[in-house]
Amino acid sequence: MNTKSLKVHVEDAVANVQMDHGEVNLLTNEFILELQHIIAELNKDERIKVVIFRSMNQHFFSAHLDLNVINHEKKGIAGTKNFMNLIEDTKNMRAITFAIVDGIARGGGNEFVMACDIAYGTENAVFAQPEINTNIPPGGQGTVQAALRLGRTRALEFLLTGTDMDAPTAERFGYITRYIPSNAIEQTLQQVVTPLTFLDQRNIDMIKELVDLAIKDEKAAIKLERKMFTERAGEGKTQYLIEKLLEHGAQTSREIQIKELLADVVAEVTQGISLTK
Amino acid sequence: MNTKSLKVHVEDAVANVQMDHGEVNLLTNEFILELQHIIAELNKDERIKVVIFRSMNQHFFSAHLDLNVINHEKKGIAGTKNFMNLIEDTKNMRAITFAIVDGIARGGGNEFVMACDIAYGTENAVFAQPEINTNIPPGGQGTVQAALRLGRTRALEFLLTGTDMDAPTAERFGYITRYIPSNAIEQTLQQVVTPLTFLDQRNIDMIKELVDLAIKDEKAAIKLERKMFTERAGEGKTQYLIEKLLEHGAQTSREIQIKELLADVVAEVTQGISLTK
Amino acid sequence: MNTKSLKVHVEDAVANVQMDHGEVNLLTNEFILELQHIIAELNKDERIKVVIFRSMNQHFFSAHLDLNVINHEKKGIAGTKNFMNLIEDTKNMRAITFAIVDGIARGGGNEFVMACDIAYGTENAVFAQPEINTNIPPGGQGTVQAALRLGRTRALEFLLTGTDMDAPTAERFGYITRYIPSNAIEQTLQQVVTPLTFLDQRNIDMIKELVDLAIKDEKAAIKLERKMFTERAGEGKTQYLIEKLLEHGAQTSREIQIKELLADVVAEVTQGISLTK
Repeated sequence: MNTKSLKVHVEDAVANVQMDHGEVNLLTNEFILELQHIIAELNKDERIKVVIFRSMNQHFFSAHLDLNVINHEKKGIAGTKNFMNLIEDTKNMRAITFAIVDGIARGGGNEFVMACDIAYGTENAVFAQPEINTNIPPGGQGTVQAALRLGRTRALEFLLTGTDMDAPTAERFGYITRYIPSNAIEQTLQQVVTPLTFLDQRNIDMIKELVDLAIKDEKAAIKLERKMFTERAGEGKTQYLIEKLLEHGAQTSREIQIKELLADVVAEVTQGISLTK
Repeated sequence: MNTKSLKVHVEDAVANVQMDHGEVNLLTNEFILELQHIIAELNKDERIKVVIFRSMNQHFFSAHLDLNVINHEKKGIAGTKNFMNLIEDTKNMRAITFAIVDGIARGGGNEFVMACDIAYGTENAVFAQPEINTNIPPGGQGTVQAALRLGRTRALEFLLTGTDMDAPTAERFGYITRYIPSNAIEQTLQQVVTPLTFLDQRNIDMIKELVDLAIKDEKAAIKLERKMFTERAGEGKTQYLIEKLLEHGAQTSREIQIKELLADVVAEVTQGISLTK
Repeated sequence: MNTKSLKVHVEDAVANVQMDHGEVNLLTNEFILELQHIIAELNKDERIKVVIFRSMNQHFFSAHLDLNVINHEKKGIAGTKNFMNLIEDTKNMRAITFAIVDGIARGGGNEFVMACDIAYGTENAVFAQPEINTNIPPGGQGTVQAALRLGRTRALEFLLTGTDMDAPTAERFGYITRYIPSNAIEQTLQQVVTPLTFLDQRNIDMIKELVDLAIKDEKAAIKLERKMFTERAGEGKTQYLIEKLLEHGAQTSREIQIKELLADVVAEVTQGISLTK
């Protein structure tokens, strides 16, 4: 599934995508098309539940959209459209997407990070939307992401100055999911990603749909949550899992160690699934 | 006002509700009905301005909704409906509601916490919505609360992993009102609750209405705030309080010590009220 | 441009407004009219990109709206309307507005802070909406600002208790832009404000419009951002700036030191502008 600048490694339900494109991981039209191709391929593979984007560049996650794309020529407009579509495609990926930002993410590079479901930043990360210096606004939903994550006053400071925000600040301000020191990234990913690989795709879809709706329309989301809860409660799979949970000590003080309890259930259930297949 | 699992102690304008239901404060149908009964009783008592929910269980605030309720039988559906109504009833309580979380709050137990106006968590608290492990979404507005309080990216991480969040993290992420060490809870409550007991019910209603509207519709809330301000400014009570504030040094540098100034006014005003009664 | 209680000092694109009105910077009707006058004057001066409001009072940024204004007499209603208009006028200022809060900001004084684009608070700052003690709600959008910045649960605690919030807490809770120790204010302002003075007014307008729209309607903001991006990308000024950025090492690892790169471009471009004038 590799392309010139993207190395994709799929292991079980997890796809690792390594970006390595020139001096600064610049979002050239060619690189954008490669990313779109890989996203389309990953969407087709139903085994994949998690996609992790990393940069192989020492300094940059991604510098920004190629400035040569941003102009008034026809090719520029085409490139801009491809970039805008890339952001939308990333937001709409089927899997749960992670951006591991261990370097500089600015402009379109930062907008790609914000289009992922989860963003972890290290001590080497900075995040910025410096477009204002070039007489343009962000073009990949950067103003919208800043407004929703930072609130009005911090979004204005961030977008009008265009300056870098480090990861500890970005975590404090709710701009990224979490600040994680680079030497703790792999361990954190292992802990967070492992339970996600056991999820059914439709359960991932369900949570994404509910969260997105809740932000837009609280009342509608409450209604949809109730409907989904009632439907799912009636399924055989739910009853089977509840039965197993109860067998392993759910609803007793064994839940103080809920991780062990769930691990036991998962062990039995996944064995059961492999036996019945 | 006590029930089998709930001890209610009313002192002046404050109702303390102690939950003690089995090994893990499981939200069984019976316990849900008890909670609904107590909420209805507390709503009737117009003296009560503040309700504080605490758990008497050493480890659990409340484990979650009884898994036996979540099934496809008629009784299960009835129990689920009761639970959903409990969450809605808690949100709509007349008083200002506090959840003091000094243990584990998961699933429906955590949704009960989120349905209270104020949530304080201690070093013993964890918050989680682990429903995804059972093939269901949260059923008591847990996805909605996570989305609104945590934002999209953190809500996805929280709901898709289903793992525990401790109170310091929950405070940092804006998921609970505040992290307060367990040995400081009583002192904090005394400081926060005492001024609330002097509030008129209609002033509590006014602030709740304005805040709820502001989140839904900023423009409408600005308009309503102006209307309420102008109406209230014209009331005799307002003029009387302003007169007293000015007598006690309002609008001078005495406001540097505003607590003392307000305490003096309250002392005079409440004496006045008791004299005229 | 000075008035009795306001000293205005304009230097290049920055207007510094110093408030000094009586013992506590009380928002009397006279002081409100002075502020409105200065705001109108500043809006007329198209050179001004940044307005910084400071208090000269040792203890108070501004105590609150004059309690004598809040009553049922005709003059009271007129004063209240002037105050509400002041808040709206402040929100709608053309320039980027800063409130430097190095003292007490309560009630209407705090609402004036919240009406500014950026609010920095020092170790001497406190923020409060204590109106509930006077039988009234905040009247200058204080409930709305609290709800949007703090979220429901913290807004309720803040507005129902009416107590002071210090600046470190206000930063942690997202109520102000940033907590900055008083001895670091001037340096911070220099760093933040300098790049803002180079902005075109229409770029300031663009970012404010996009951020405000994003908070109200995410989908509409995405659409508007795309439209503005495409239009601006086609402008000669954008192409000129991109050309200069590329000449100075954009899209190479020189972007690791982006500040220096931008400073070089600004130096050349501003020289160019002065030469062509």
